[in-house]
Amino acid sequence: MKVIKGLKIAATNCGIKYKNRDDLLLVHFENEANVAGVFTQSSMPAAPVVWCKKNIKHGKAKALVVNAGNANAFTGKIGEETVLKTAKKVSKILNCKEEEVFISSTGVIGEILNSDLITNQIENLVKNSDNNEEFWHKAAKAIMTTDTKEKSVTKTCEIDSKLITINGFAKGSGMIAPNMATMLGYIFCDANISSEALSSILKEITEDTFNSITVDSDQSTNDTVLLFATKTANNNLISSASDSKLENFKQALKDLMLELAQMIVIDGEGAKKLIEIHVKGAADKKQAKKVALSIGNSPLVKTAIAGCDPNWGRIVMAVGKSCLEASPEKLVVKIGNYELTKDGAKHPNYVEKLVHEYLKNSYVLIEVDLAIKKSEKDNCATIWTCDLNEEYIKINKDYRS
Amino acid sequence: MKVIKGLKIAATNCGIKYKNRDDLLLVHFENEANVAGVFTQSSMPAAPVVWCKKNIKHGKAKALVVNAGNANAFTGKIGEETVLKTAKKVSKILNCKEEEVFISSTGVIGEILNSDLITNQIENLVKNSDNNEEFWHKAAKAIMTTDTKEKSVTKTCEIDSKLITINGFAKGSGMIAPNMATMLGYIFCDANISSEALSSILKEITEDTFNSITVDSDQSTNDTVLLFATKTANNNLISSASDSKLENFKQALKDLMLELAQMIVIDGEGAKKLIEIHVKGAADKKQAKKVALSIGNSPLVKTAIAGCDPNWGRIVMAVGKSCLEASPEKLVVKIGNYELTKDGAKHPNYVEKLVHEYLKNSYVLIEVDLAIKKSEKDNCATIWTCDLNEEYIKINKDYRS
Repeated sequence: MKVIKGLKIAATNCGIKYKNRDDLLLVHFENEANVAGVFTQSSMPAAPVVWCKKNIKHGKAKALVVNAGNANAFTGKIGEETVLKTAKKVSKILNCKEEEVFISSTGVIGEILNSDLITNQIENLVKNSDNNEEFWHKAAKAIMTTDTKEKSVTKTCEIDSKLITINGFAKGSGMIAPNMATMLGYIFCDANISSEALSSILKEITEDTFNSITVDSDQSTNDTVLLFATKTANNNLISSASDSKLENFKQALKDLMLELAQMIVIDGEGAKKLIEIHVKGAADKKQAKKVALSIGNSPLVKTAIAGCDPNWGRIVMAVGKSCLEASPEKLVVKIGNYELTKDGAKHPNYVEKLVHEYLKNSYVLIEVDLAIKKSEKDNCATIWTCDLNEEYIKINKDYRS
Repeated sequence: MKVIKGLKIAATNCGIKYKNRDDLLLVHFENEANVAGVFTQSSMPAAPVVWCKKNIKHGKAKALVVNAGNANAFTGKIGEETVLKTAKKVSKILNCKEEEVFISSTGVIGEILNSDLITNQIENLVKNSDNNEEFWHKAAKAIMTTDTKEKSVTKTCEIDSKLITINGFAKGSGMIAPNMATMLGYIFCDANISSEALSSILKEITEDTFNSITVDSDQSTNDTVLLFATKTANNNLISSASDSKLENFKQALKDLMLELAQMIVIDGEGAKKLIEIHVKGAADKKQAKKVALSIGNSPLVKTAIAGCDPNWGRIVMAVGKSCLEASPEKLVVKIGNYELTKDGAKHPNYVEKLVHEYLKNSYVLIEVDLAIKKSEKDNCATIWTCDLNEEYIKINKDYRS
């Protein structure tokens, strides 16, 4: 991780759930940062999600506070008060508006989060905050729950011949379609880009990155991605997402978000393989994504791959249940470079042993051509998922005990 | 099982996959039986499903042939030929039309089914067929795949003061949301009811029985339920599904189909508990069923119940992702007799230990009131599912090896 000017970071243990590790993160900005966000579509959003959704429209951030170990979700009025008390405390100490304090929580749903545990730490966090490479890694670690690995990525690009740095870190390993884990992602850059432009760029890229991964088809109450811009790189302000000067920035941001998204899948609860599923030749992109997710969420497909069993009939099953317009005669299914189907039946060149060997890899590619329409750029979709192992069951049976 | 007049049953081992057990079933009717059917909605239907869908409109059956161990799905032209050869052979021996021969297959998808294995057995099957209680159980056993138990039910009722007997048997334990398992169900009665009336009764009852169960959210390429009426009970012909004389018959048939459906769930791969999920207060029945299935298909809810962990926040999560109109403040979630939620938060009377003890039962009831509308008969739905254990993963990783 590289240092980004204009902000300071601190993390500590505040005693919510975990021992001997940080579970509370504070990032604060020297000046107002521009900010954009995307949030869970759930009708049962956590209290901090409701708070962030309300304040994101102002586009200005002075601080970010994230706790791990309690989701502050489905906690009613008390949950709202916890968020408000946190915002008030931070705004008082940093001398900013409450609405400029962004808050996230991740952990168990339905348990009351004691606001004192957080507010009692704010003053010390501000005092001990710093901005160096080590602190970026502390930040990435402080938000972990069932994650086994820190997930952080750095990219650079140029705008107006000025070097732009983008740092991102994320968490999540179950309740991912974008579980308990919650998918949280925080991205920081030093570019001078308006919050409106940041917002439209973030939404567009999220669709093909964080919104294209699935571990277990369960969508969290807390999913949140926030993108901050400190404006310290001294480029001229860019106000429009379509500004051609942003091309490199968009590509770098997409690369960063995709890497973080894939890190979440690879660290999926119990997962041993990254599975990439590419569907083309659909009626439109929406249909392509629906079929890809049907394959990616099928427990039978995911267990077969866990067992290196080329039981490709399960892929056909997942296509059949999700796409009524598909026809067996036209369907082409590939695993790796091996064509599995032809004319509505097993491909004559199919050799099970070869596909079985391929499936022993830690990366598996499944390609499906629905051949409903000619394959173009706008009627295909790629999603990423992981295999399904006994460990997923163990982790989730024993989660709270 | 009681004997139903007008038909004969035979089963044998034909060598498709299994050793030391029957895997081929023949039922033939002395006179034409009336028949109705419901089939998988998959766009990749197996060859025998395509055959049955085409011929069900004639409403007449002389024979049923079912094999286990090979699904004859995604087998192209050869698969179609296998079905046709089977129908031709049976029609020749029984002296009936090909279209009166109904055929089902269950097993692995995408493997060629050698038609000789089936056609070579037909003559012997007819010769050795009989009609007694033992043969009904042989029939129910011959169609099993990963099922650990025979699934058969008998009900009786009256039409026109005539005693009517209904026998049903079914199979299925994975790829159930009506996998490999396939859900197959065959129901026989001796009532004199037209095939049109049978068809509309079967469709209506299927929605609340076989179509309301889920083991793993995966819909098979082979799902089939057939309802035959031998007309040997000597009641006067009933031509309309709305005939009031059918009330008792409908109730008996529904009871039978629901018992079979629940048997499939209880025998779900690795399952140890039957979970009943009742959702009420939805905008309409469709929404109620969508939410119920979202809960019933959530791997996190199912693993929590497997571990007797009252992690009810996962139920809230599953409601939130499937029903955008729901609001936390109104939502009422119950496990057994325990209310878990109130005013958008954990219920003040909630005692985790009590719910943990309740979850040790082999039957678990989850009730959700969305409170979007007042709870009425037409805006609720009930579905049945099972818990998710390590054994499901083991069975499906190792299935073919």
